[in-house]
Amino acid sequence: MTVYKYPEIAEVKKILKRPEIKSKDLSKVINKVFKLVEDKGDSALYTLTKKYDRASLNSPIISLKDIKNSEKFVSKKLKKAIKIANKNIEKFHKSQIKNELKVVTTEGIVCWRKSVPIESIGLYIPGGTAPLFSTVLMLGVPAKIAGCKNIILCTPPDKNGQINPIILWTAKLVGISKIFKVGGSQAIAAMTYGTESIGKVDKIFGPGNQFVTAAKKKAQTLGVAIDMPAGPSEVCVIADNSANPIFVASDLLAQAEHGTDSQVVLITNSASLIKAVVKEVEVQKNGLSRMNILNFSLKNCKIILTTDTESSFEIANIYAPEHLIISTLNAEKNASKVKNAGSVFIGNLTPESLGDYASGTNHSLPTNAFAKSYSGISTESFVKKITFQKASKKGILNLAPVIKEMALAEGLDAHWKSVEVRLNSF
Amino acid sequence: MTVYKYPEIAEVKKILKRPEIKSKDLSKVINKVFKLVEDKGDSALYTLTKKYDRASLNSPIISLKDIKNSEKFVSKKLKKAIKIANKNIEKFHKSQIKNELKVVTTEGIVCWRKSVPIESIGLYIPGGTAPLFSTVLMLGVPAKIAGCKNIILCTPPDKNGQINPIILWTAKLVGISKIFKVGGSQAIAAMTYGTESIGKVDKIFGPGNQFVTAAKKKAQTLGVAIDMPAGPSEVCVIADNSANPIFVASDLLAQAEHGTDSQVVLITNSASLIKAVVKEVEVQKNGLSRMNILNFSLKNCKIILTTDTESSFEIANIYAPEHLIISTLNAEKNASKVKNAGSVFIGNLTPESLGDYASGTNHSLPTNAFAKSYSGISTESFVKKITFQKASKKGILNLAPVIKEMALAEGLDAHWKSVEVRLNSF
Repeated sequence: MTVYKYPEIAEVKKILKRPEIKSKDLSKVINKVFKLVEDKGDSALYTLTKKYDRASLNSPIISLKDIKNSEKFVSKKLKKAIKIANKNIEKFHKSQIKNELKVVTTEGIVCWRKSVPIESIGLYIPGGTAPLFSTVLMLGVPAKIAGCKNIILCTPPDKNGQINPIILWTAKLVGISKIFKVGGSQAIAAMTYGTESIGKVDKIFGPGNQFVTAAKKKAQTLGVAIDMPAGPSEVCVIADNSANPIFVASDLLAQAEHGTDSQVVLITNSASLIKAVVKEVEVQKNGLSRMNILNFSLKNCKIILTTDTESSFEIANIYAPEHLIISTLNAEKNASKVKNAGSVFIGNLTPESLGDYASGTNHSLPTNAFAKSYSGISTESFVKKITFQKASKKGILNLAPVIKEMALAEGLDAHWKSVEVRLNSF
Repeated sequence: MTVYKYPEIAEVKKILKRPEIKSKDLSKVINKVFKLVEDKGDSALYTLTKKYDRASLNSPIISLKDIKNSEKFVSKKLKKAIKIANKNIEKFHKSQIKNELKVVTTEGIVCWRKSVPIESIGLYIPGGTAPLFSTVLMLGVPAKIAGCKNIILCTPPDKNGQINPIILWTAKLVGISKIFKVGGSQAIAAMTYGTESIGKVDKIFGPGNQFVTAAKKKAQTLGVAIDMPAGPSEVCVIADNSANPIFVASDLLAQAEHGTDSQVVLITNSASLIKAVVKEVEVQKNGLSRMNILNFSLKNCKIILTTDTESSFEIANIYAPEHLIISTLNAEKNASKVKNAGSVFIGNLTPESLGDYASGTNHSLPTNAFAKSYSGISTESFVKKITFQKASKKGILNLAPVIKEMALAEGLDAHWKSVEVRLNSF
């Protein structure tokens, strides 16, 4: 943890510069995987799953029986917890789609937008050390609310060709039944081209390692949309004297345990808080299971001392963190100062974990300063909004002189003619 | 114009396959331009503008005086037309931002979203044969409504270093005063890195040729968001016996005049309509100024004869056109069948030109089948939606057991601890 005292804005930009993602050129290996999957379909998936996951498959499909059986391996308590989280996420994400009203822009001209579900979508859930069933909720719930017809879920198998039953059970709870045990760039390629078992999709969602990220970029060049660019997870805590150092330390640690590349930033106008937080981090760290990761990621933790809370927000807006925790007096009032952030946690009693799992907000959020321009995942991520317009005789008569002037000035006379032939018919 | 009779769905997919965009590898030249602009700033812009636009600059900035003077060169009639279009676009785009309500997901947990403007945005307006001032409205109006603080407009100069005054006048009307005479990939590079004159932006909007498109992709890899992938413009007309062949022919011609790569599709269940439309296209073509382009793009025009209107919509949804014109009986009722399209024009009296200029809907729309997953530009394209949440004591107590179960099952005990330390303080 490094403390920076009263840095100038130019300096702040350097201090908070994210580590450059070593974009090792993965295009060779990604292109190879895509070519193989395009040419050989399912059989390519078996080859690649053997190579990368060391698992032997004779089908990538997870049977409905396996999905059903998963319930035996999930505790009652965990089921209850996931159900509550599911309900909250559902409640918040249902509030996000509104019917828009028809707007009469000129007499006789009516315009409106309609949210229409993206028909086929693919969700990618990474494997690895922890089963990220919470991400199944965060992607699956809004997809269902949006009304997506074909929802595919891909997740890598372990060496024995198995998927964690909590992932299967959560998918079933959400209503997803097309689940495939395929991971990595081959999963993205399969959803891009389609194989005998796996349907081609229109948009791919979900986190992943650098191979998955590179594969999603490749998919995008092939006409498949993706949710957003991915990067390491981030938290920024803005605190003042009113903050509890025990809480702040726990918030920094919660972020730091994600991975060795986790980004952890504290901005405060209180020198005494910094002292207390640094001490508390050491104390709390020792009880935790992911010490190896913590020791690594905490080294990179940055603490900035500012002159006042106003400056703290200014700096946080420059950083544009994925998660922003506001632990100050009048936290809710201060929240109006936030210009760039993915999700904001207001007050001393709102740790990020609430949003990670169960408050109802989405945990798929923009990282790497993309919070300046991207929103996190919402129900809107699973629809497109189509515009409609209808003109009456009165309407086209009203706009005809406008179209004539503008189309001819742009040198597009057939544009004007398409109006004129209609006028001539009256 | 080629007529296909009653094709099977598999065949339809082949017929309506877009021509592959010859993605000549432009990365070498784009990388060179970006490097030069990053290293040399404005002076690189002078070099590149001399090279590509044959214009000598000593500043890329268009002075406020030049912007003001533009009014002398725009006719009264055109000004009036642009003002009406501006008002309609404003009216429709103002209706798109709504305050969302706070949602209590669990007792003591409140969640909400807030639309926050993207601070700095760049608009690219292509040069070339026609001054696309309508695109200035389509991008500038929603940017202003969204509340973007820094709006930059780049457009290439002609050989004499001049910008078309209609573009300047329209920009002034919208309220944009930071206008730069820089075009091509160097404009995109300037907005990505920032130069002495041109500020770095968070998101870049606007159409352009293959160099601009490749440069926008490059910008995206450097952390700048872009509006959407660009491709040739498209129209699909669905018509039945009730359609007027004169109108339909004029709609096909209006699309065909855009460029030699324009995509023009007619889908109808009426063989007699096809006959009449083909004849009418020949008749109307002769009066038009862009004959060279028309002769080229009409060759590629596809006409599909279907058994019924239901099938016509099924085929149009597979194609996912940028613009869809519905010229059938019960056109508005049929509009509910649209699953994939950018903007829809309902009925015999709603030609695409209305939406291109003045109905109020946006004309920046997804092409190349991206209408399956992308929306056109709206006010929402210029904001991000930040989520907020606040827990009371009651709220965190309610969710604590949920977080405990889920965090521990995901192996993230520091996540649970950040809740536990708060409970311990009660």
